[in-house]
Amino acid sequence: MTRPIQIVPSVLPADFARLGDEVAALEAAGVDLVQWDVMDGQFVPNLTFGPDVIAAARSHCSVPFEAHLMVLTPDAMAQQYVDAGCSRLIVHAETAPHLHRTLDNINGMGARAAVALNPATPASAIEHVLDLVDLVLVMTVNPGFGGQAYIATMERKIAEVRAMLDERGLSDSVDLEVDGGIGPATIEGAVRAGANVLIAGSALYKDPDGLEHAVSHLRSLAEGARA
Amino acid sequence: MTRPIQIVPSVLPADFARLGDEVAALEAAGVDLVQWDVMDGQFVPNLTFGPDVIAAARSHCSVPFEAHLMVLTPDAMAQQYVDAGCSRLIVHAETAPHLHRTLDNINGMGARAAVALNPATPASAIEHVLDLVDLVLVMTVNPGFGGQAYIATMERKIAEVRAMLDERGLSDSVDLEVDGGIGPATIEGAVRAGANVLIAGSALYKDPDGLEHAVSHLRSLAEGARA
Amino acid sequence: MTRPIQIVPSVLPADFARLGDEVAALEAAGVDLVQWDVMDGQFVPNLTFGPDVIAAARSHCSVPFEAHLMVLTPDAMAQQYVDAGCSRLIVHAETAPHLHRTLDNINGMGARAAVALNPATPASAIEHVLDLVDLVLVMTVNPGFGGQAYIATMERKIAEVRAMLDERGLSDSVDLEVDGGIGPATIEGAVRAGANVLIAGSALYKDPDGLEHAVSHLRSLAEGARA
Amino acid sequence: MTRPIQIVPSVLPADFARLGDEVAALEAAGVDLVQWDVMDGQFVPNLTFGPDVIAAARSHCSVPFEAHLMVLTPDAMAQQYVDAGCSRLIVHAETAPHLHRTLDNINGMGARAAVALNPATPASAIEHVLDLVDLVLVMTVNPGFGGQAYIATMERKIAEVRAMLDERGLSDSVDLEVDGGIGPATIEGAVRAGANVLIAGSALYKDPDGLEHAVSHLRSLAEGARA
Amino acid sequence: MTRPIQIVPSVLPADFARLGDEVAALEAAGVDLVQWDVMDGQFVPNLTFGPDVIAAARSHCSVPFEAHLMVLTPDAMAQQYVDAGCSRLIVHAETAPHLHRTLDNINGMGARAAVALNPATPASAIEHVLDLVDLVLVMTVNPGFGGQAYIATMERKIAEVRAMLDERGLSDSVDLEVDGGIGPATIEGAVRAGANVLIAGSALYKDPDGLEHAVSHLRSLAEGARA
Amino acid sequence: MTRPIQIVPSVLPADFARLGDEVAALEAAGVDLVQWDVMDGQFVPNLTFGPDVIAAARSHCSVPFEAHLMVLTPDAMAQQYVDAGCSRLIVHAETAPHLHRTLDNINGMGARAAVALNPATPASAIEHVLDLVDLVLVMTVNPGFGGQAYIATMERKIAEVRAMLDERGLSDSVDLEVDGGIGPATIEGAVRAGANVLIAGSALYKDPDGLEHAVSHLRSLAEGARA
Repeated sequence: MTRPIQIVPSVLPADFARLGDEVAALEAAGVDLVQWDVMDGQFVPNLTFGPDVIAAARSHCSVPFEAHLMVLTPDAMAQQYVDAGCSRLIVHAETAPHLHRTLDNINGMGARAAVALNPATPASAIEHVLDLVDLVLVMTVNPGFGGQAYIATMERKIAEVRAMLDERGLSDSVDLEVDGGIGPATIEGAVRAGANVLIAGSALYKDPDGLEHAVSHLRSLAEGARA
Repeated sequence: MTRPIQIVPSVLPADFARLGDEVAALEAAGVDLVQWDVMDGQFVPNLTFGPDVIAAARSHCSVPFEAHLMVLTPDAMAQQYVDAGCSRLIVHAETAPHLHRTLDNINGMGARAAVALNPATPASAIEHVLDLVDLVLVMTVNPGFGGQAYIATMERKIAEVRAMLDERGLSDSVDLEVDGGIGPATIEGAVRAGANVLIAGSALYKDPDGLEHAVSHLRSLAEGARA
Repeated sequence: MTRPIQIVPSVLPADFARLGDEVAALEAAGVDLVQWDVMDGQFVPNLTFGPDVIAAARSHCSVPFEAHLMVLTPDAMAQQYVDAGCSRLIVHAETAPHLHRTLDNINGMGARAAVALNPATPASAIEHVLDLVDLVLVMTVNPGFGGQAYIATMERKIAEVRAMLDERGLSDSVDLEVDGGIGPATIEGAVRAGANVLIAGSALYKDPDGLEHAVSHLRSLAEGARA
Repeated sequence: MTRPIQIVPSVLPADFARLGDEVAALEAAGVDLVQWDVMDGQFVPNLTFGPDVIAAARSHCSVPFEAHLMVLTPDAMAQQYVDAGCSRLIVHAETAPHLHRTLDNINGMGARAAVALNPATPASAIEHVLDLVDLVLVMTVNPGFGGQAYIATMERKIAEVRAMLDERGLSDSVDLEVDGGIGPATIEGAVRAGANVLIAGSALYKDPDGLEHAVSHLRSLAEGARA
Repeated sequence: MTRPIQIVPSVLPADFARLGDEVAALEAAGVDLVQWDVMDGQFVPNLTFGPDVIAAARSHCSVPFEAHLMVLTPDAMAQQYVDAGCSRLIVHAETAPHLHRTLDNINGMGARAAVALNPATPASAIEHVLDLVDLVLVMTVNPGFGGQAYIATMERKIAEVRAMLDERGLSDSVDLEVDGGIGPATIEGAVRAGANVLIAGSALYKDPDGLEHAVSHLRSLAEGARA
Repeated sequence: MTRPIQIVPSVLPADFARLGDEVAALEAAGVDLVQWDVMDGQFVPNLTFGPDVIAAARSHCSVPFEAHLMVLTPDAMAQQYVDAGCSRLIVHAETAPHLHRTLDNINGMGARAAVALNPATPASAIEHVLDLVDLVLVMTVNPGFGGQAYIATMERKIAEVRAMLDERGLSDSVDLEVDGGIGPATIEGAVRAGANVLIAGSALYKDPDGLEHAVSHLRSLAEGARA
């Protein structure tokens, strides 16, 4: 398992009235990339933002953008997010009856494809698409809202996905991301189970010592858990 | 027909990286209210923004907000937009099999209900809900994108809706809005046909003399067309 | 307008633990037929009962049964309700993209077809199927629940449908039913507007003088309104 | 009403094992164009054929092809039928929530757009798209199968559409087509009501004197009914 | 495996005209609880009954009620069944894209959550929600109708689920239910495979010696199979 | 593994203007059966042909027909394909929430049921229906189009399915089919992984030495790979 630890913010708690400043501040705080939680109000009960909002923020920082597509129809929408400046698109296995084609198409658009698993979805759902992705996202909350509590039983699934990647010889090239409830109290468990890309939302914005402290604190906890 | 002319911006052309400043500038330019084009990527092919984006902009200006819900499931979403600070919710007749209940429920949430008609939808679709709304929106483009050309044949429908309002004695209390391609070249036709609330997007932002000029220019054209 | 006044109970307020007794009591009270409010929890937010419940009650009284199908897929379900003993099936215009075929098929099953209109649906939705039905139902509440308040503005639509029937020479053969909020305070308005079949639910069950009084009272009010 | 009478075959009764020969025979028999009944098994209960079947037949005759799209998602499919060689695409009003855009897009693909009405659908459904089409199809059977009986009550709707076209000054440029149960016994009624393009399926193939006789017989009946 | 054997009736064969008496008779016959087969006519081809029917029966017996939700939208409906008096809600894994949230929400309503598997659905579908349920239902018929034959090949899946529960240390706290075709000829096989809660419908009502005999006979067979 | 090698054409590249001749030529070339790729434009983005096209070709050859149903609603359509002369129906696991019932029903129609897996779908999706089928189809392209490239990573799944069949003692009675990109360069890998029924489309029609050579060449490669 040689992929580096990455600390990645969810922008859900950011101030949407000044998103440009917010993503610049995240970059200054040392995040590795920015994740955009795209929700359509259909696959999940909340509607957040689409490609034009993401595109507007693109010029305000230089770290990569990834779009986490919590939408019913990822095939119809993928190109818009690539055009908006996302270099990685994460598709939910539950939303794509032709998941292999969906991921293959995203790779063909010049972005990197990734796949997400809802808490109830078994790891077997992705066993035949691992060669098409550069990241697997194991959700540690049910998607739809920020600020939810970490579901610790997902560590079993994190470990299963890590074992699948190891067995296929993919742990050097494929990241394993977790999203939901990640903070100082939970990040070590997620890393020990096998995660290396850690999404943090509330935990970053609620740190009384500020974003930069929050990022470096989470990073040191994560790297410590790995040693 | 005694309802006043209102000039209302669509925020679609605004800079989403600094929405707070953008809505403040719109208010300073003299708009009567701000319309939020909520699209879910399902009823229309574009996904824009949801309640948290609108809520973030709410404190940056004091004119009323209205949400134009271009979504598959307005019933499930309406409360979120009231909570986000919208005092009017516009529902598409095409999306609500129980349109009368949907509008009645919105009124019960403390917002005012309004109803929109796609270009192909006949005015008869709303003849039994007129007593529940304070605004009817006749779309003059097919919803989904900013920057489209005004469909002049919709003036026939604008006139039909105006006649319905007059016949029911509702022209004092119900506004008639048009949305799509409204600018200096088209606003007079829309007003002459019967509209009094005019949504403008590109026309505002492309005016070389700035937003304030654009608003007052459109307003004087509209008021002139009425005289 | 020569079709007789009919007073018809909705069974929604009945005691479902003893439905056999309940329908027998309704018959004894003098109702003309019994309406079954079939809801699937999809077209409307409530799920009530299906064909086996209706079939179980069939032998406990001899007045005709009609099924009001508030369901997404009336075509797939119609035969089951005919088999359960319903001699009339009422289909919502909003649920059948091939409404003419749906009604024609029901007539071919040996039942009589009827068509219902949601409060927001214009009368034009049924103008090309009037020759296939023996009853038109104008909803005076939004379907889904018992005990709702009568929407008086629907009297405009009742009158429109009555005018359509008159103009086609169908008022001798086609009934005009109303459903929702019908009671002593509202029945006369509905009849004056043109209805002759009156569904009553709460109003029957809440009459302190009992079902029989409620039925005869409503009937005399309705017949008086007509004179 | 100056548009010429046209006799157009449905290929549903043709021998699909030798479609090339079949369309050549239709052309030789004098038909004006060929209609392809595209059914997806979702909007209608039957699945027939798609663009590759039509394209294969294209080189076997020279009369124009039109595709009658009885499908749930005409927007997603339209381009394929233009590419297959259809110069006109007929879309059902019931299948397109953004009907105006759908028709406009088809015109932009280099084909001519047309719109169809199911038997139960009122003519008002198309009153705001008449300027976008070169043909209106009034179905005289419920779509899905060949060999059904003509619904004579549709003549009221044919007359309504004809009146709409006349009132808009469109009868010189827009055809009025009927489809379903057209044969020697019914064609005159349809023409008298206002139709000028007549689809015939079974009636052509069952004529004991052959296709050519059937076409010329229908044509002479239709032209006679007009005089 | 220490959870007790439970014999549970399906009410599908009961007389719906006198449900109160029927559930009282089931209680008198010694059943451990009553299962309500809620079908919406959409997830399964049959529509049975909803919350008001169940609520009406609640006061006629004191054994617990469980609702088996064979519906498309369990999230939207769950609260109604808790309010109707069901202390356990069984959700189909096939119907809930966010199954973990659905089950968690039910637990938050004060009922106990359970999960069902269609015959074709693999046990892996529930491996990440086992900590949220107090019962797993392995269907031994395809849901939708009473009176179907037991699918003996499901015993492989029953054994797999039992092994999962054992491996997680959950066999003391989580029940394993089977439903479909359970009777004297099949109950022992189901129990030997690992089931401890046995739903019986036709087998109870067809026993010539009556309900009480049927319940005790099935119970003794089940307990004997376990010894 | 004793089931014979079979070489089976997809008709997608055939000339649909003369399908009768085409299937006769395939039979003359020595194919074992003919597969019909039924696509509805909904489950997959292409619409091909339905039962009437297949039925028309039935009398032109005597090898068996199988229908590969790439459709949203296989239950509603199955009987039509049996009636059209298909002796085997292949249903996608992704399209049938009640897959066990769907396959059981097909067997009850007098055809043999088979099940297909999309590239991303794990083999576990069919582990509880293997006793109902006489063939499993492992897709080696994402369904929807002819002429796509073989996905070699699917050989892992082919091997998994073969192992499941062996473990259940079903390899004598159940075929294992692959479909997509099969040609001289890929057929040996598929056979070595465990396939015995090989669908070929483009590879057959593009062979410069003709269909008969193509069939015998593929057959000899497949049989050689097995030895």
